[in-house]
Amino acid sequence: MSLVIVGTVAFDAIETPFGKTDKIVGGAATFAGLAASYLYDRVKLISVIGEDFGDDNLNILQSHGIDVEGVEVISGGKSFFWSGKYHNDMNSRDTLVTELNVLADFDPKIPASYQDCEYLLLGNLTPQVQLDTLNRLQTKPKLVVLDTMNFWMDVALDDLKAVLKRVDVLTINDAEARQLSGEYSLVKAAQVILKMGPKYLIIKKGEHGALLFGEDQIFSAPALPLADVFDPTGAGDAFAGGFIGYLAKVKSINFTNMKNAIIYGSALASYCVEKFGTEQLQHLSLDEIKGRIQQFIALAKFEISE
Amino acid sequence: MSLVIVGTVAFDAIETPFGKTDKIVGGAATFAGLAASYLYDRVKLISVIGEDFGDDNLNILQSHGIDVEGVEVISGGKSFFWSGKYHNDMNSRDTLVTELNVLADFDPKIPASYQDCEYLLLGNLTPQVQLDTLNRLQTKPKLVVLDTMNFWMDVALDDLKAVLKRVDVLTINDAEARQLSGEYSLVKAAQVILKMGPKYLIIKKGEHGALLFGEDQIFSAPALPLADVFDPTGAGDAFAGGFIGYLAKVKSINFTNMKNAIIYGSALASYCVEKFGTEQLQHLSLDEIKGRIQQFIALAKFEISE
Repeated sequence: MSLVIVGTVAFDAIETPFGKTDKIVGGAATFAGLAASYLYDRVKLISVIGEDFGDDNLNILQSHGIDVEGVEVISGGKSFFWSGKYHNDMNSRDTLVTELNVLADFDPKIPASYQDCEYLLLGNLTPQVQLDTLNRLQTKPKLVVLDTMNFWMDVALDDLKAVLKRVDVLTINDAEARQLSGEYSLVKAAQVILKMGPKYLIIKKGEHGALLFGEDQIFSAPALPLADVFDPTGAGDAFAGGFIGYLAKVKSINFTNMKNAIIYGSALASYCVEKFGTEQLQHLSLDEIKGRIQQFIALAKFEISE
Repeated sequence: MSLVIVGTVAFDAIETPFGKTDKIVGGAATFAGLAASYLYDRVKLISVIGEDFGDDNLNILQSHGIDVEGVEVISGGKSFFWSGKYHNDMNSRDTLVTELNVLADFDPKIPASYQDCEYLLLGNLTPQVQLDTLNRLQTKPKLVVLDTMNFWMDVALDDLKAVLKRVDVLTINDAEARQLSGEYSLVKAAQVILKMGPKYLIIKKGEHGALLFGEDQIFSAPALPLADVFDPTGAGDAFAGGFIGYLAKVKSINFTNMKNAIIYGSALASYCVEKFGTEQLQHLSLDEIKGRIQQFIALAKFEISE
């Protein structure tokens, strides 16, 4: 039994109002894998990298117990590279560079040892690669979580709809939920999207928290108000990794556990944004995560007796 | 002992994607008073209206047990009138008409019977009128709640700062908190604003809920996701009225009660937006309000045991 994460393992170069980085380790699967590794010990990645990625960087993942057998190294190839600059409000950014490199021909390989996959996170990638991954698993996982973005709604909507039919949980942001459904009200948007396939929909609202829809219920999760958001890169991926990592750990899929999984995902995302890239996610302790969970509990709790 | 609300009692004409109204009863004190009246039975208004307002409209307030002795009628005068049109997303609006009329010379009169005021809501008005009201009360109220807006930060910042020094709770939205503090992070904004006088700061975020800062704690209140927002007019005033009405009822000011007061305020605001103007606030039952409180509890509740 394992948790398999498909997504990018890559380089980022980031500029924020607080400073800038050279090429540092990034990619959705990197953030998600690191986040999940604190909650579950059989995390396995599927990705593609170039020779330039290097053993030291792969070792960041391995030192967290993450299996990288499914991370294909293309000899002579260069890893996916993204560079972006955040505006002062940190809620919007400009992409400066996108070099697909080896990601352009990503053909996900599933090692035999990954066929025990029970929990699958399909990170934000072309819907076709997400479909290929699903098709190449011999057994349907117990839980499939899909992350995607507006770009794929623009250029590959039919493929996206095909993969949506086969997933249990979809995570998107509020603007994407509106785009995908054609409804402005998020309640109506959720009704439309839940008919497309997923049993649960998570709408991520950044500094405003997240909404979970499913089982005819709604859960509103708070975001932890932070004095300093240093670098938002990877927050959504850390959220998804923490979310599915918690569910893999507790091994039971229901609305109650989904709610807790969202709080764990939010806690890991809140750590993620406090430093550049994966820096904070590389060096957390379980006690720190539990401390932050307590902050979320205090933040949201109220008791009305009458 | 009483709850006194100072603010506009006026006419609105509203256009939304769902329809439009002729002149209907509106005004901050009207919305706040109606909301508070469900929770507390000694609500008293201070305002100014013209002869055009009419007894039938005043009776809407009186039939909710609201004391209107402090609502001055200017003979031959016309009531404040606002007209606005909401855009499709209901989060932004254009003001079509603003006729100050009798509000231009509003000089708040405090009837002798209002001097028992323990709870005071200073609705969104010129800071000078808010100050005059405070100065004319012989005894400092147990709790003073101030609502204001960006316009007064632009044109009357010194007066606003003077009144801020004398209030216990400030309610503003997130953009206004950023403007008033000069800080983008709401955590830092709250730190700055709480040094200006208020012991508690409520940051209203509309469809994203509200944040309460004070006593070195933070509370994040959810907003109820609604399938249809029919007319957002008065939601912030209904929130403030429900908030202070609950505190007047429970008679004890602390962070725990403030949290519950925010949930009550949010429940009343959620009803307010479901119909035009005050229509819904005129015809609620206590059971309906309690039912909505249960929805808020279900919406926000999670339990993490490990």
